[in-house]
Amino acid sequence: MKNTFGSSVCITLFGESHGEMTGAVIDGLAPGITVDKAFIASQLSKRRPSGKTGTARREDDKFRIVSGVFEGKTTGTPLCIMIPNEKANSSDYALNSFIPRPGHADFTANKKYHGFEDYRGGGHFSGRLTAALTAAGAIAISALNEKGIEIGTHIARCAKINDRKFKDYNKDTEKLNSLDFAVLDERRAALMKEAIEKAGSEGDSVGGILETAVTGLPAGLGEPWFDSVESTLSHAMFSIPAVKGIEFGRAFDCVDLKGSEYNDAFTVKNGRVETVTNNNAGINGGITNGMPVLFRLAVKPTPSVFKEQDSVDMLSMENIKLSVKGRHDPAIIHRARVVVDSLTALVLCDILAQRYGTDWLGE
Amino acid sequence: MKNTFGSSVCITLFGESHGEMTGAVIDGLAPGITVDKAFIASQLSKRRPSGKTGTARREDDKFRIVSGVFEGKTTGTPLCIMIPNEKANSSDYALNSFIPRPGHADFTANKKYHGFEDYRGGGHFSGRLTAALTAAGAIAISALNEKGIEIGTHIARCAKINDRKFKDYNKDTEKLNSLDFAVLDERRAALMKEAIEKAGSEGDSVGGILETAVTGLPAGLGEPWFDSVESTLSHAMFSIPAVKGIEFGRAFDCVDLKGSEYNDAFTVKNGRVETVTNNNAGINGGITNGMPVLFRLAVKPTPSVFKEQDSVDMLSMENIKLSVKGRHDPAIIHRARVVVDSLTALVLCDILAQRYGTDWLGE
Amino acid sequence: MKNTFGSSVCITLFGESHGEMTGAVIDGLAPGITVDKAFIASQLSKRRPSGKTGTARREDDKFRIVSGVFEGKTTGTPLCIMIPNEKANSSDYALNSFIPRPGHADFTANKKYHGFEDYRGGGHFSGRLTAALTAAGAIAISALNEKGIEIGTHIARCAKINDRKFKDYNKDTEKLNSLDFAVLDERRAALMKEAIEKAGSEGDSVGGILETAVTGLPAGLGEPWFDSVESTLSHAMFSIPAVKGIEFGRAFDCVDLKGSEYNDAFTVKNGRVETVTNNNAGINGGITNGMPVLFRLAVKPTPSVFKEQDSVDMLSMENIKLSVKGRHDPAIIHRARVVVDSLTALVLCDILAQRYGTDWLGE
Amino acid sequence: MKNTFGSSVCITLFGESHGEMTGAVIDGLAPGITVDKAFIASQLSKRRPSGKTGTARREDDKFRIVSGVFEGKTTGTPLCIMIPNEKANSSDYALNSFIPRPGHADFTANKKYHGFEDYRGGGHFSGRLTAALTAAGAIAISALNEKGIEIGTHIARCAKINDRKFKDYNKDTEKLNSLDFAVLDERRAALMKEAIEKAGSEGDSVGGILETAVTGLPAGLGEPWFDSVESTLSHAMFSIPAVKGIEFGRAFDCVDLKGSEYNDAFTVKNGRVETVTNNNAGINGGITNGMPVLFRLAVKPTPSVFKEQDSVDMLSMENIKLSVKGRHDPAIIHRARVVVDSLTALVLCDILAQRYGTDWLGE
Repeated sequence: MKNTFGSSVCITLFGESHGEMTGAVIDGLAPGITVDKAFIASQLSKRRPSGKTGTARREDDKFRIVSGVFEGKTTGTPLCIMIPNEKANSSDYALNSFIPRPGHADFTANKKYHGFEDYRGGGHFSGRLTAALTAAGAIAISALNEKGIEIGTHIARCAKINDRKFKDYNKDTEKLNSLDFAVLDERRAALMKEAIEKAGSEGDSVGGILETAVTGLPAGLGEPWFDSVESTLSHAMFSIPAVKGIEFGRAFDCVDLKGSEYNDAFTVKNGRVETVTNNNAGINGGITNGMPVLFRLAVKPTPSVFKEQDSVDMLSMENIKLSVKGRHDPAIIHRARVVVDSLTALVLCDILAQRYGTDWLGE
Repeated sequence: MKNTFGSSVCITLFGESHGEMTGAVIDGLAPGITVDKAFIASQLSKRRPSGKTGTARREDDKFRIVSGVFEGKTTGTPLCIMIPNEKANSSDYALNSFIPRPGHADFTANKKYHGFEDYRGGGHFSGRLTAALTAAGAIAISALNEKGIEIGTHIARCAKINDRKFKDYNKDTEKLNSLDFAVLDERRAALMKEAIEKAGSEGDSVGGILETAVTGLPAGLGEPWFDSVESTLSHAMFSIPAVKGIEFGRAFDCVDLKGSEYNDAFTVKNGRVETVTNNNAGINGGITNGMPVLFRLAVKPTPSVFKEQDSVDMLSMENIKLSVKGRHDPAIIHRARVVVDSLTALVLCDILAQRYGTDWLGE
Repeated sequence: MKNTFGSSVCITLFGESHGEMTGAVIDGLAPGITVDKAFIASQLSKRRPSGKTGTARREDDKFRIVSGVFEGKTTGTPLCIMIPNEKANSSDYALNSFIPRPGHADFTANKKYHGFEDYRGGGHFSGRLTAALTAAGAIAISALNEKGIEIGTHIARCAKINDRKFKDYNKDTEKLNSLDFAVLDERRAALMKEAIEKAGSEGDSVGGILETAVTGLPAGLGEPWFDSVESTLSHAMFSIPAVKGIEFGRAFDCVDLKGSEYNDAFTVKNGRVETVTNNNAGINGGITNGMPVLFRLAVKPTPSVFKEQDSVDMLSMENIKLSVKGRHDPAIIHRARVVVDSLTALVLCDILAQRYGTDWLGE
Repeated sequence: MKNTFGSSVCITLFGESHGEMTGAVIDGLAPGITVDKAFIASQLSKRRPSGKTGTARREDDKFRIVSGVFEGKTTGTPLCIMIPNEKANSSDYALNSFIPRPGHADFTANKKYHGFEDYRGGGHFSGRLTAALTAAGAIAISALNEKGIEIGTHIARCAKINDRKFKDYNKDTEKLNSLDFAVLDERRAALMKEAIEKAGSEGDSVGGILETAVTGLPAGLGEPWFDSVESTLSHAMFSIPAVKGIEFGRAFDCVDLKGSEYNDAFTVKNGRVETVTNNNAGINGGITNGMPVLFRLAVKPTPSVFKEQDSVDMLSMENIKLSVKGRHDPAIIHRARVVVDSLTALVLCDILAQRYGTDWLGE
């Protein structure tokens, strides 16, 4: 299983940056989930580049759902979403397959596929495929929302600028999901955009940290060993290009705490068991405890930079200087957050369907 | 698939802390791998508690391989390793299933298994199961070493004390694998031990960061989207109790870099393509590039503390004060590192077998 | 995993009979396999209805490969094939979702999907989806042929008429693959066609037995228990609509033999070990022995008949008389055989890739 | 996944004929299923050889459940059952790995495992492993029975003698499950036993047909394409040694029927929809329709015969005469039927858990 992920609800990706289209097949969704095309379009618009913070390649993302939906609702059979590539322009970048761009997958694709890969614009490794993921995820998000499960992601840090922390998960999530540039503090949002534009104008790029909160999950989801909730979510998150780290809660910052400080005490609240703190980020022993699930992703700076870089010519095996041209993103973190929400939703649909059966999300 | 992980080489775990035994079945190992029982025993000894830094429960870990090995070599059919529990003592901790210990899986297990779980000593969630993982992993490590692939893990940080960084991966790995307490700088090792013992004497515990290096991996391993090397390794690592974060390279520290600083330039060295830096930690686009694969794990402080904690009585639904008794670890990070090495080895055997076929590791 | 099958090489199906299109994603094919569009088209033409033996719905099957092929060869990344539905005509059959047609999946789909299923023309259960399977399988067949592995299927029995038996597997296979109506004895082919047409003219339908031979497989493929070659092939074959039985060799006819009669003696021939007879159909203990793999499929008569049948109205829960209208096949066995070849090829690509690695078929 | 089968409920097998033990790990069973050791023992006794119809190797099958059961009920975590090999006697058969016994897996195991396989007594391919399957299946059968799902298998044919057909599924199933030699007609049971003993006394063996009925299954189970109920059951059944064919209903006998004869008309009975006939064996489009699921297995004659056979010496590559010695079964069909019931039960538990969630069977 390479481009398919999930067990009860699973997603398969296909397509290349400069091919005819990219797409996704989602299988195992419960029958009867309302498919809201306007919401899918609005989610895609959050992923779409805009202004000076994104690439000049501006696809319309005219998605088509060609199966699995009947009279506006999911049928329970595979749902295939396709998004045509209309603005591909092979003339400007990824000139060939034998001068790999640093930080990109050109070199490793060549090692894996022996030169048969479609190298144009990153081919199958391109961020273009996340459009299909986003469209698929929008349906999963709708289904979860119906069950009272909410997902929100903000840019916690970008270009050395921190957003404020989550205060009220539900209100903050609602706010984030209404924003194109998902930063809770508007002033800092402006500073981040400025920094991204500046990096872009210098032919450079920036990265940052995304932070996600999931509320409304029941306790008892996940598995004790290999399919812990952390295992499954991290597996999915590392399939997003540029993600190089994940922590549940503030794990790396918390390793200096004592056990007595880190442990989340239990308490009875409103007739149910909660924890007083949430250092374990809603997960104990791999299984949800009913508190918000929280995780942070380290997003590396976009590898596409216009500054001259050192590379090699794999045919002559000589060192060369490489100046990449084309249309690129000075940052992808603000576009990646909707991909994170989407993939999170797909993973949760899978976990819930395994736990409660295939119909649960549609009932 | 809950307690089984892997595709071509896969591992299944079973057992509980206070049951008769724990064990692992490894399936798909190439035929003809030499099984070195002394090496397995030495790996188990690295995981075993000792001195004042570990729990007073001291199992002998008398492992038995009951299938899959014939005349000293793997047969290619499932290899089952069992390790008896001889020192279980249910009288002293986990008194019942309805007063959950903070930070442990007692509460979530109850929510998932509705009170049918074996709650004694953490049951199936117990770190005891990592003994079987370690024994299984020892065979995988042997097989990889034969192919020139080396794995080494050190305690990069514990109780606020940092180890020195990796200098020479091969030499450092060799050194680490000879140590019971895997710290490169001996002086700092002593300080860490002291801090662990102090925490233990206070009825408290500490956590830290483990850092792993894998050398000798060929380029071209892994998959572009859902089975990226990061995805697969992180999936496995989050099955280790207490791991709450993973980063490839120093991801969270590097998000402030510019793309031009972060990208790893290519160069020709000794007739092959290498990268000058290794910020991407040996992985581009989810696929190995031939450089060392590096990752760091955030290990939370052991949840077992003797200080009084707040919990609830799930029968009466009242808040109570809980004082845990029993035999516990003031730290598990020094014991966890051999588990990390083992699971890393099992994942890599799987990835290699998928890429090169089922015989490759045994040839 | 519902509509995805395979481990190293896997296929995902999507689409409905009266939707916009059906399609398949094949993932894990080795890079560098030549994609011969003319061969794909010729395989599709074998599945396409024609003359009086097939339905009046005559789709052109204008397939499009939208990913995974670059410069005429597989890239190694997911290959998506789409086939538009151009001749769907919902007015004529499957009037509604609550009067199930006997023998079809209308009733069970309703029970599984609670009325959200696309019931038009059988929806996702329609034989239309085998067009995508056939196109995908054509690429797999090409790859296998390059390695000296040949697959051939004939109609061993139809409407009580038997074809002659296989004589020379390689010659017979070559002949079969040149035929649209795959019967070795031309005279009997004519009789079968006549019988199919007669059944059609009576508003009825016929079934039969397909027999498949695979030559050129190396010994040592498959797994001892759950992934025996028989297990994997049968799993795939039962996904073909109307298949209700499978036997390897002539199993049901051979149960009266004594062990001493049934066992296939070994002998040395041309410097390699062969068996004198092949009652075990090329498989011992689930694993190939290098002899031809042989299997037979029982194909039930097409459930679409125009004769009046007894059914129920699931809304009023009353018995009713049902006369199905529309465009239907009096037999699908002659069209199913290329689906059998295709799915066999996909399964074998998977088994070979697991055994020899992901590149083997493309080298 | 080689020796592991299932998705939500899965089973892993390990062990060899002459190793220390064989065993099974069942994962994903709902928590709270009562584990009845006496029932397990009685199921094992049905598999155990006895009288003159079975091998002289008579193991006591002293099974031990070493995990996954607490206070008499399943915990929901992996349940490991072990059965020691006490009566292995390597001196008498399978003298070496290079003179393969016809009909056995000796040759193919050698080709797959290159001589590293444990060849003694068939090693991992031995029917001994079905003891562990039987023990595991007994727990699954108990769980299904609690839900009103019953499984029964009879020897429909053996040594050219037919049993009577099923009349009343529930009564016949109850009767069969009380018998050691599962034949509905006692007179024919005696004839079959006689024929088996006669074959044994001649150093030969016989095969036959097993027929299984499952009643009480809800409609709507299974998947439309690759995970049809037929696909999943057949996958499992072909993992039983000696099974070479499967048909749902009397598929091979029914291919001569017309569609109008074969289709199962619907009718309303006792307020629910049933079919008048059951030629489709309870499955339409891969999905259960609520009628009994019926299948028949072709069981080849046991390959172990004492008559002289032709084989080869794989070292010298010369033809030789082989006389097998040892303790063998003149038939395994009467012992195999409880294995069929067991594996059927495990598959159904998996399908039900996927459909209704992980807790359903334990509630």
